[in-house]
Amino acid sequence: MRETWVAGAASGRFGRLSETGREAGTRVALEAIESAGLAPKDIDLTVVSNCFGIAERQAHVGPLLNTGLGIPEVPSLTVESACSSSSAGLHEAYVHVAGGFADAALVVGFERLSHLDTLQATSYFAMGADYPFETRNGATFPGLYATLARAHAERFGTGPKELGAVAIKNHANGARNPHAHFQKEISESTYLGSPMIASPLRLYDCCPFSDGAAALVVVAREAHGDGPREPLVVRASVRSGSIADLQDRPELTGLPATRLAGRRAFQAAGIGPGDLDLLEVHDCFTIAELLALEDLGVYTPGRAGRAEVEGETARDARVPVNPSGGLKAKGHPVSATGASQVAEIFEQFNGTAGGRQVPHPEWALAHNVGATGGSCTVHIFGHR
Amino acid sequence: MRETWVAGAASGRFGRLSETGREAGTRVALEAIESAGLAPKDIDLTVVSNCFGIAERQAHVGPLLNTGLGIPEVPSLTVESACSSSSAGLHEAYVHVAGGFADAALVVGFERLSHLDTLQATSYFAMGADYPFETRNGATFPGLYATLARAHAERFGTGPKELGAVAIKNHANGARNPHAHFQKEISESTYLGSPMIASPLRLYDCCPFSDGAAALVVVAREAHGDGPREPLVVRASVRSGSIADLQDRPELTGLPATRLAGRRAFQAAGIGPGDLDLLEVHDCFTIAELLALEDLGVYTPGRAGRAEVEGETARDARVPVNPSGGLKAKGHPVSATGASQVAEIFEQFNGTAGGRQVPHPEWALAHNVGATGGSCTVHIFGHR
Repeated sequence: MRETWVAGAASGRFGRLSETGREAGTRVALEAIESAGLAPKDIDLTVVSNCFGIAERQAHVGPLLNTGLGIPEVPSLTVESACSSSSAGLHEAYVHVAGGFADAALVVGFERLSHLDTLQATSYFAMGADYPFETRNGATFPGLYATLARAHAERFGTGPKELGAVAIKNHANGARNPHAHFQKEISESTYLGSPMIASPLRLYDCCPFSDGAAALVVVAREAHGDGPREPLVVRASVRSGSIADLQDRPELTGLPATRLAGRRAFQAAGIGPGDLDLLEVHDCFTIAELLALEDLGVYTPGRAGRAEVEGETARDARVPVNPSGGLKAKGHPVSATGASQVAEIFEQFNGTAGGRQVPHPEWALAHNVGATGGSCTVHIFGHR
Repeated sequence: MRETWVAGAASGRFGRLSETGREAGTRVALEAIESAGLAPKDIDLTVVSNCFGIAERQAHVGPLLNTGLGIPEVPSLTVESACSSSSAGLHEAYVHVAGGFADAALVVGFERLSHLDTLQATSYFAMGADYPFETRNGATFPGLYATLARAHAERFGTGPKELGAVAIKNHANGARNPHAHFQKEISESTYLGSPMIASPLRLYDCCPFSDGAAALVVVAREAHGDGPREPLVVRASVRSGSIADLQDRPELTGLPATRLAGRRAFQAAGIGPGDLDLLEVHDCFTIAELLALEDLGVYTPGRAGRAEVEGETARDARVPVNPSGGLKAKGHPVSATGASQVAEIFEQFNGTAGGRQVPHPEWALAHNVGATGGSCTVHIFGHR
């Protein structure tokens, strides 16, 4: 296994694209390549994620993107794993590079759905659930995550105080992130006054539909050596799965895929949850951040909510969670999300995260979930 | 690099599915795993291809498929590269297994579009082309491949005799393949009497829209050793790209991605085109088979048509091409196609190809193209 780095990264501003997804993807790809001190001709493989490219009538987008980069001969593929698509793409890039099949791989995730109306966009998102057994019976993701939130509430008493703390903290972080979809703080009364979407989840418990693009450059240390920026050394790149449908799971107060990927990732990295200085976790709904922190072992089951309320996850606390603003405030352009989490950690490791900078993180974890946890990817990054 | 085998394979009958794509995929996956002498619990990774799952309102299908196989915890991803999706999936599985990241990987490709009308199905297929520059201007694949056929005709005099020879030969092979969509021979007069679709391509120059599913099991020799069937030893697994849009290519009488992948594959395998005993090539249109044979170096440019006319590519000739019937007669369920080519070679290596059996093939090549050659995958297989 070769030592493998994320040597470059870039993220556009999330929200609404005035260009096609592929144009946005090409732009961030060029920025990521430049940040790695490389040129497009150094890239051996392009791994694209663009779950809902069909909403732009475009499949097979890799060759178009590579042509735009001036490297049409380079192989490309599109990787889909619902909301964890571009972290799955990073894992594929990692396997190619660590295994010696490529020296430098480009990971690009982009999504554009804002040209659709909300109903159309919702129906695209819902394709990540099990159509015959969930979607066709009326379940969409707010309802499915509300089911998880209710189970957590019943067992641990998790309520608006705990869920609201996640929303308020992530909006506070997003307000300091120029890439974020929502750059405004919210108060507890704003949170509590927001309409109920799927009880107990209010509007401010839900991440938005966002357009956006993010890109990473993955290299073998032995092939490309030091670049202009501080790299993320990939200490663990782990993927897992679980029973996709909630109705078939033995319990609903955690995501089994996160538990499995987390356990294996800490084993691979040789560290424990207590060693982390920074986490970017999958908070498509506020409850998801609590589940992530408990399933990863950062907090014992039922304890994450109190930690959020007490400020233990804030940007200036010992272990900040989602300093980027998370999916909740930074936004959730499905296929760009996983790559953007890693792009945030890249800025944090380089000390270039501006108003949301975390002081000198040594170890960071990125956690990205597909749908309600049918898939999960966990990456752990350290320094050279 | 660990020695890597395709140790199991299965293909359903192509044509029209009366079940969902995912049900068909689960069925062939179980058959492929059984043919490898393994159980689902032996699988470490599932690589799915299902380009147009959205036509069944289903993305993120890997966890659903794994759940059906009884291995929900196994990571999965969906790989798309237009018509070369499941050969790209095989390449990913190969990289994971050869690189030591998995001991056994399942590759499954399935597609179901027959519940749509022809216009809808065409519009899905067309998403593999460049939307703003090709599709939006009216170009669909019959027209794009007709453009390639015209360029070949102008330079080499390729006409209905040469194109028809491909169609007639592949239908003759399909008539002996119980998995084929079209199991009937056609005569030269039937070919010539078929309506013009996009001049010079007639109806019988075009592959059909098919539903279908195919699966492969990829293992490390050192991990799983001999199974019940003769394995395909992967001697080369190579992917490439090219400028996707025809209008931007310097010439149109061949596909640059095939040339590049072919050259690298022969180099990796340490053999030349003259060593092959059997080829499954991408004949979405008859012209594509001629381009493939010339771009791979089996015939010099402009010579493949005459070889087809003279019977050099027939099932009982020295080097049979598309004994399965090819995309032309076996059918083209987009995401199942690449895996089904390899499933055919698996049957041929095992001597279980029935009425279309090729005597004792030692070396075989599978060639799979995405769209008009924006992507290409070439695999070369030998024996233990």
